[in-house]
Amino acid sequence: MSHVLDEAIQVTAGPDGVFHATTHTAYANMVGPFGGVTAATVVNALQRHPEVLGEPLALTLNYVAPIADGDWDLQTEIVRTNRTNQHWILRIVQNGATVSTGTAVFGLHRPTWSSTEAQPPTVPPVEDVAVQDFPDFIAWARNYDKRFVVGGLADGASEDSTSTLWLRDQPERPLDYPALASIADTFYPRIFLRHGTYMPAGTITLTTYFHATPEELAAQGSAHVLATARGVRFGNGHYDQNGEIWSGRGADAILLATTHQLVYFKDPQ
Amino acid sequence: MSHVLDEAIQVTAGPDGVFHATTHTAYANMVGPFGGVTAATVVNALQRHPEVLGEPLALTLNYVAPIADGDWDLQTEIVRTNRTNQHWILRIVQNGATVSTGTAVFGLHRPTWSSTEAQPPTVPPVEDVAVQDFPDFIAWARNYDKRFVVGGLADGASEDSTSTLWLRDQPERPLDYPALASIADTFYPRIFLRHGTYMPAGTITLTTYFHATPEELAAQGSAHVLATARGVRFGNGHYDQNGEIWSGRGADAILLATTHQLVYFKDPQ
Repeated sequence: MSHVLDEAIQVTAGPDGVFHATTHTAYANMVGPFGGVTAATVVNALQRHPEVLGEPLALTLNYVAPIADGDWDLQTEIVRTNRTNQHWILRIVQNGATVSTGTAVFGLHRPTWSSTEAQPPTVPPVEDVAVQDFPDFIAWARNYDKRFVVGGLADGASEDSTSTLWLRDQPERPLDYPALASIADTFYPRIFLRHGTYMPAGTITLTTYFHATPEELAAQGSAHVLATARGVRFGNGHYDQNGEIWSGRGADAILLATTHQLVYFKDPQ
Repeated sequence: MSHVLDEAIQVTAGPDGVFHATTHTAYANMVGPFGGVTAATVVNALQRHPEVLGEPLALTLNYVAPIADGDWDLQTEIVRTNRTNQHWILRIVQNGATVSTGTAVFGLHRPTWSSTEAQPPTVPPVEDVAVQDFPDFIAWARNYDKRFVVGGLADGASEDSTSTLWLRDQPERPLDYPALASIADTFYPRIFLRHGTYMPAGTITLTTYFHATPEELAAQGSAHVLATARGVRFGNGHYDQNGEIWSGRGADAILLATTHQLVYFKDPQ
């Protein structure tokens, strides 16, 4: 039996670098599909392209218009393949209209000097943190086991928009690049946390840097990742946030991905 | 007499959303032009498009191949103009080859609730920090008055890749969106700071979120901005960095822009 994420990100390759995809009700959001599953579908498609080089390094997706329930096409163009990296232009088209645009960089992981300056948040182990469910109308969230250490959706207004949580696919599923792309967008809008209430808000543009090597993903298996995000500046109808996805807690934790997004919002009425 | 930055970012509009630009020797980098001036030229062009909506909110530029000295064309496409924002696809072509790709979001600044969670670094006032020049072969850096509080280029190897500096165009020039786009890329490679030496390194993809309103830019005038950046994870031939551009220091400082990039590097031989 296939995992629901694999069903949702399934693509069929057509000619000229086009991939056909279909929205999945299990990953519906309040308006259109959850942006993370769109990102995951894009990564899945690019990985299946016969001329792909290496693994995803960077993905920027711009959410131009809501995707409607149903079929959509991803148009891909490999702009240039260098020795160690490859540049892509992406466009998602539905019913003749462009609903998302983007660019991606794939590349090879070469052994070099390494160092991680960021530090994982200090948190209790997974098993000491309670699972938190989101309200039923946020369908996609049911596909994640979410254990908030700080900044849960039901915690009320906070002066600090940080959410830090243990997270994994539900049911369990070994981590791969598409799943990581989706996880990078699982932080509910930071503006909800500042105000302690739902407000009109939506991601305009999302950029994720994939640090994880294939070996690091294999070592992760289906264990929870440690995810943290915080808003930076809110105002004039927009805010940005920075996020980090860690393999776990403590000194040995590996920074699997960093992620940034700019979000549209409206004041609560 | 026009400012050297205005000369460098000058564009001529052609048909079909194409803008013609030319590299400027004053902003040369070690290989090709300084990426910041390319970003500034793009922002300048988009602002001059007759159908532009509002001001820049987000820009992602991917540096696909070095730009050679000489002319280049920016191909722009307005994918969609919503009520409050506008999505662009960008491509820089030189001698028939795509050398950069990108996307941009422009939009209106609407009055809303506001809050800045990031804090500016604690630094001495501009006049108490010495000007630092870069070596002559980094031509573009001569166009900036740079006063490093920490992480100067000549400071030797550091365990912390943070650079924090006061910075303004030289000669003085009132801050605008193109200048801000360029400043967001003025951090020399963080890998140099970790190793205390020059190494092969280059930006692959750059994303900047423009928070500054037109009024905030006008209030800034030609005063120094306070810029800070730090590497996040280095390894496997790449690293990412996060940067912030502040209007000044202290409690009243305004976060003008946040910026992120993924950089290619090779180990020192």
